[in-house]
Amino acid sequence: MRCKPKQMISKTLLLLLLLVNASFAADLLPSWKDTAPKKAIVTFVEQVTREGSPSFVPVAERIATFDNDGTLWAEQPMYFQLAFALDRVRALAPQHPEWRTKEPFASLLKGDVKAALAGGEKTILEIVMATHAGMTTEEFEQIVRDWLASAKHPKTGRLYTEMVYQPMLELLDFLRANGFKTFIVSGGGIEFMRPWTEKVYGIPPEQVVGSSIKTKFEMRDGKPVLVRLPEIDFIDDKAGKPVGINSHIGRRPIAAFGNSDGDLEMLQWTTAGRGTRLALIVHHTDAEREWAYDRESSIGHLDKALDQAQAKGWTVVDMKNDWKIIYPVEKQ
Amino acid sequence: MRCKPKQMISKTLLLLLLLVNASFAADLLPSWKDTAPKKAIVTFVEQVTREGSPSFVPVAERIATFDNDGTLWAEQPMYFQLAFALDRVRALAPQHPEWRTKEPFASLLKGDVKAALAGGEKTILEIVMATHAGMTTEEFEQIVRDWLASAKHPKTGRLYTEMVYQPMLELLDFLRANGFKTFIVSGGGIEFMRPWTEKVYGIPPEQVVGSSIKTKFEMRDGKPVLVRLPEIDFIDDKAGKPVGINSHIGRRPIAAFGNSDGDLEMLQWTTAGRGTRLALIVHHTDAEREWAYDRESSIGHLDKALDQAQAKGWTVVDMKNDWKIIYPVEKQ
Repeated sequence: MRCKPKQMISKTLLLLLLLVNASFAADLLPSWKDTAPKKAIVTFVEQVTREGSPSFVPVAERIATFDNDGTLWAEQPMYFQLAFALDRVRALAPQHPEWRTKEPFASLLKGDVKAALAGGEKTILEIVMATHAGMTTEEFEQIVRDWLASAKHPKTGRLYTEMVYQPMLELLDFLRANGFKTFIVSGGGIEFMRPWTEKVYGIPPEQVVGSSIKTKFEMRDGKPVLVRLPEIDFIDDKAGKPVGINSHIGRRPIAAFGNSDGDLEMLQWTTAGRGTRLALIVHHTDAEREWAYDRESSIGHLDKALDQAQAKGWTVVDMKNDWKIIYPVEKQ
Repeated sequence: MRCKPKQMISKTLLLLLLLVNASFAADLLPSWKDTAPKKAIVTFVEQVTREGSPSFVPVAERIATFDNDGTLWAEQPMYFQLAFALDRVRALAPQHPEWRTKEPFASLLKGDVKAALAGGEKTILEIVMATHAGMTTEEFEQIVRDWLASAKHPKTGRLYTEMVYQPMLELLDFLRANGFKTFIVSGGGIEFMRPWTEKVYGIPPEQVVGSSIKTKFEMRDGKPVLVRLPEIDFIDDKAGKPVGINSHIGRRPIAAFGNSDGDLEMLQWTTAGRGTRLALIVHHTDAEREWAYDRESSIGHLDKALDQAQAKGWTVVDMKNDWKIIYPVEKQ
């Protein structure tokens, strides 16, 4: 039997050329200033990739996990997935006349988001279930794709997928060029992220870990479908992140990246492993180019994790002073 | 900053050489006879890898899922994980004096496995919880490693990891050489498989999907651990397999391999996608070299899936007549 690996060979050659190139590249992290965080990243990668070094880590174990909201893309003035849910409430309202008098939907439809969300987590859960369940996985994927192709951020007027952080895109590439497998480990919905993470971050669906609702296998007209049920399956936040990492990846990361207290346990879990580890927190300090928030913010609340970072010597990125640019659109 | 991609380059060169070699190799499936199943596999792979062909599938979407028990390794006279659990009951008995009078443990400890398992699924669950929960994930991994390094199969006297099917090992390699990402999707415990699938099958932990119990993040003496709880999290069998595939992989496989009715929904889910698909069932027909069982067997029960295979034209491997050898030890 003859095998036809032509495509594989050309891909491999391409990879080879890229790698040779990389070794001579002046800088693979051009949007990072030459400050402490960049030095910490480069030093860490050199240590774990240098063969014969006591810190050397085989390629298979070079697992890096990234939070998404506030770490890879922005999260203000509200988590983007919540903006998606609110848009879905508006789109679905004609099919739900009862929402006109039922909270939180009534307030939402009147445009009073603040009143609608006053009920806190329970209310948000209700909105998520009303907008994320009841369809097949394929239908939901299409809804997400359609929304992302057209919805605009209220402050910048840009597509949400344009509000990713250019320095973090470079960091993802840099790690992958050094043999790392990059994963998302986010409190956001796993099926909300998967339709676009490969294109935007180079992270394929099978390397996305997130919160989920239950699904059920059904035959419909002789065709199998997975139906999304209005029932929480898993919350991938705080102490749930190491659980999600264990469940999906089955190895402990050697590097983890977050921006809030929701990432604290992931950073603890990562750094508690043997050998050289990297824990990095993106600190939102740039009120002008992005947003400035930490201990007092309900979105991206960063308090305990910031204290631990100081106590443990984790790397903290000061967005204002460590990043040359924020968004890809600023590239020259 | 200088990057040191030496190791990556040598790995890449090695891969390149392997691929060039592969294209001239007379046969990458040497343990398969030149019968229909081998032809179906080779034809399928040629179709989906031929660029420009209407059946062409990009590398990123070449997802292949494999059941484990009875598909990649043997499963008689009982699922190997059950043998592990029974050995654990014996090992733990001194710490559980109450087991001397409590079923199913009392019968087990007297050596009467049949009486012990008479309670069916509920009993097995009880045994699994007593033996698989209550320790950290790291402790459990070590217990599994230790058991596999020493426990012997009652019939063959071999290590359980030696009772994998040589033709399937070749199939895994063949698919990977053609750009496929290979996953296990098994009813077996995910943490029971992960410690050894990379070494035995070349399938890394992050590509293993299985049944699971819940885990809980805890700090113990300032060190984070994941504790295994006596509570079912997910059963990756039957209609659970497409759910597990969706949850862990997030893409539909284009090829799936199973051996029992527990794999039926995975095969349906796989073949219902657009384009060229491969569904294959390993039929245990070789009472001499392995075991012969199907419709009447409680272990590896194969009835509905065999009917569907005939109706839908899925590939069925007749182990006796399609495989030259069964186990790696028979290689010359």
